[in-house]
Amino acid sequence: MTTQRIKHILKSGNPGDTVTIKGWVRTKRDSKAFSFLDINDGSSMTGLQVIADAKIDGYSDAMKRITTGASVVVEGTLAESPGKGQRVELQASGLEVVGESDAETYPLQKKRHSFEFLRELGHLRSRTNTLGAVFRVRNACANAIHEFFQSRDFLWIHTPILTASDCEGAGEMFTVTSMNLDKLPKGDDGKVDYGRDFFGKPTYLTVSGQLEAEIMAMAFANVYTFGPTFRAENSNTSRHLAEFWMMEPEMAFCDLEGNMDLAEEFLKFVFKRVLEDCSDDMEFFNKRIEKTVLETADNIINNEFERITYTDAITLLEKCDKKFEYPVSWGLDMQSEHERYLAEEYFKKPVIVTDYPTEIKAFYMRLNDGGKTVAAMDVLAPRIGEIIGGSQREERLNVLEERIAAAGLPKEDYWWYLDLRRYGTVPHAGFGLGFERLVQFMTGMANIRDVIPFPRTPDNVEF
Amino acid sequence: MTTQRIKHILKSGNPGDTVTIKGWVRTKRDSKAFSFLDINDGSSMTGLQVIADAKIDGYSDAMKRITTGASVVVEGTLAESPGKGQRVELQASGLEVVGESDAETYPLQKKRHSFEFLRELGHLRSRTNTLGAVFRVRNACANAIHEFFQSRDFLWIHTPILTASDCEGAGEMFTVTSMNLDKLPKGDDGKVDYGRDFFGKPTYLTVSGQLEAEIMAMAFANVYTFGPTFRAENSNTSRHLAEFWMMEPEMAFCDLEGNMDLAEEFLKFVFKRVLEDCSDDMEFFNKRIEKTVLETADNIINNEFERITYTDAITLLEKCDKKFEYPVSWGLDMQSEHERYLAEEYFKKPVIVTDYPTEIKAFYMRLNDGGKTVAAMDVLAPRIGEIIGGSQREERLNVLEERIAAAGLPKEDYWWYLDLRRYGTVPHAGFGLGFERLVQFMTGMANIRDVIPFPRTPDNVEF
Repeated sequence: MTTQRIKHILKSGNPGDTVTIKGWVRTKRDSKAFSFLDINDGSSMTGLQVIADAKIDGYSDAMKRITTGASVVVEGTLAESPGKGQRVELQASGLEVVGESDAETYPLQKKRHSFEFLRELGHLRSRTNTLGAVFRVRNACANAIHEFFQSRDFLWIHTPILTASDCEGAGEMFTVTSMNLDKLPKGDDGKVDYGRDFFGKPTYLTVSGQLEAEIMAMAFANVYTFGPTFRAENSNTSRHLAEFWMMEPEMAFCDLEGNMDLAEEFLKFVFKRVLEDCSDDMEFFNKRIEKTVLETADNIINNEFERITYTDAITLLEKCDKKFEYPVSWGLDMQSEHERYLAEEYFKKPVIVTDYPTEIKAFYMRLNDGGKTVAAMDVLAPRIGEIIGGSQREERLNVLEERIAAAGLPKEDYWWYLDLRRYGTVPHAGFGLGFERLVQFMTGMANIRDVIPFPRTPDNVEF
Repeated sequence: MTTQRIKHILKSGNPGDTVTIKGWVRTKRDSKAFSFLDINDGSSMTGLQVIADAKIDGYSDAMKRITTGASVVVEGTLAESPGKGQRVELQASGLEVVGESDAETYPLQKKRHSFEFLRELGHLRSRTNTLGAVFRVRNACANAIHEFFQSRDFLWIHTPILTASDCEGAGEMFTVTSMNLDKLPKGDDGKVDYGRDFFGKPTYLTVSGQLEAEIMAMAFANVYTFGPTFRAENSNTSRHLAEFWMMEPEMAFCDLEGNMDLAEEFLKFVFKRVLEDCSDDMEFFNKRIEKTVLETADNIINNEFERITYTDAITLLEKCDKKFEYPVSWGLDMQSEHERYLAEEYFKKPVIVTDYPTEIKAFYMRLNDGGKTVAAMDVLAPRIGEIIGGSQREERLNVLEERIAAAGLPKEDYWWYLDLRRYGTVPHAGFGLGFERLVQFMTGMANIRDVIPFPRTPDNVEF
């Protein structure tokens, strides 16, 4: 009789099976001759209902000590559940209280708490239904990412967190130092002497692993990164984190078409897998958090994504009847309202917009013939807008050198990036996906701070 | 006729199959009527041998342009290979040079290069046999970690990189700031005013996700972290990195015994899986890098790990004939030479040493009866010494409070860690494994800088 996780008992336990469970008490209801306990061990949304007869050993002492949040070990026999929604319940033959939970001070009482309140309780909030479901879905989603890429022979590569370069020249970066800020060594010019810092030069937290992923794609053909990235942007919104996880595949011998195919296949796969692995959690989100969660998943899985050029998308937006807050005009970046209109209202399914104006995109994106546009792509999804951004990369040495110069970037910083175009260059492409945005999209959670265990935002670095 | 990866062709391609491959030229041998090309696409150690007949279209132009490192697309038909070591070779019907590789300047010529030299070429070294094998093994190993834990219902959790606490009060940490170091805001006391920094207080890069993993284990029972961690230690050795990946499982309702069982099962699983997934690469390491690689793997997989208390291990070391450089005495930490003696010479297999003196271990480890020792464990392996360190955690509120006080740590910093003991505390345990140490151990690579794509060490933050 080994310990079993509750999700397996709920799924495949049979009346008559003897089991031991270990978990935490969510609710307790006493009656004269017995008590009902709802026990949760984090393996599933639904707990296991335990019936403890007053005749079992130490019953009255245990019942005095059990309150919401207490940890227990229960042995017993499964029986058919008369209640609806559950196949089985556990008739306890033994009940041990492992750790009490002070009922006077335990902050997670039966009533509903706001997500804002729960954020102050980062060490306890995972014990609630919603956050529990979020982190199970987050795990399933992360796991699906690995499954997708590994089964296609992509290598997971770990690109560096500490970097001396800033990838796109975009994004505000955090500085990393081993120097004592109160005693910074200064040079003769009065400036900080980085020669005496750990790395001998100014060092930052990465904003993207793409450039290093390109290095690895030139050796292994297909690779992906999946790790933390950072932005020092002072944005106190429901969509921004200072620390978040990003996933970036990079494929050698691949053009924009192949990139779009992969992105579409990827999103379908991940949604499908999460629906299979976390069906209860996903139903919970659909019922309690956002009523279009399952509809959106279905939309992603079952529709061929629309593919349209930026130029055609702009024409379409200019001609439509919708009044937008921001102007629409060729050369301007699309705003969230435009992206959502395309995906939600016009096409009513995911849309991949391609070939954006050169001016508004990064230097490494491949220049299309004529030079006005680059081989970029954004995947827009109903309800959330941009979920994936990617491009075919510029693989031609001379063109890339011109783009770096035009962007005003120092060529010497890109010596190794240029070397990749000198030695066996190939057409290659990839994309980036903000992992928390994906989990938000999947679960319908309104605030990105509620889909990462310990969110880092301006003035928040607790836990 | 879709593109195939070379590893699949080598494994299951049949004479007569038509295939297209895309990869890079490792070597070229010309004869009068045809050329032999060794093409590698990063999917395996062994490349595919291509025979290009002089009669194919554009042959002479292609041959002029092809040098080591050039990228090519080859179409053709598989044929039985007359050479040994390969089942099939590719008779080209079409050959396209995608990107040339300047033979005058390409740094990876046929001759062997030192690993030190290759480190200067972080953007190209993955194209060599050894580094290619390392990163395939690294991927397989990372993948095996996920497979092991996911199949046992552990959730992968992402603990924060940015933190205001320092976990154990041990380890030198990097400071992270969004402030301009040349213009640091100062308070009236002349000290840096962190109130004006991004997080409003001094912030660091994490040295361990354990404490946060404990939070999650108290909600989901079984969890693991797998992500980057940092040390600002100025150690220029072959065993230290400033940035490295760490894997830390944490299990609720688990004692030291269960922790040892998991660690043993884990190592056996990972070695077995990597041997299956990367047999060619592992044979290469055994032949070219370290002749005990396969023997060590076999030793791990097929031996029951020895389990011995620290006290007994010290007695054993004191009584043995071996002369050690460092003293052996109860209360002193074991040195690498002692650990290796136990695993390599005495037991000749992995050893788990348990119950270390309280004085030399961290405050969160569970105090054994009597108080002289704590429920810690180190897994020692032949050739490498300590590979895993872990413990049962102190789950008793009053004992933990005393330990925090005794360690001179500020209790208020641990309010949430103590809360975990107030509300439904349970016996729990976990361990930590340095991922690069594991890959080093597995491959026999002498320098840890050669098992991570872009090593960060003092004065090294290139790429």
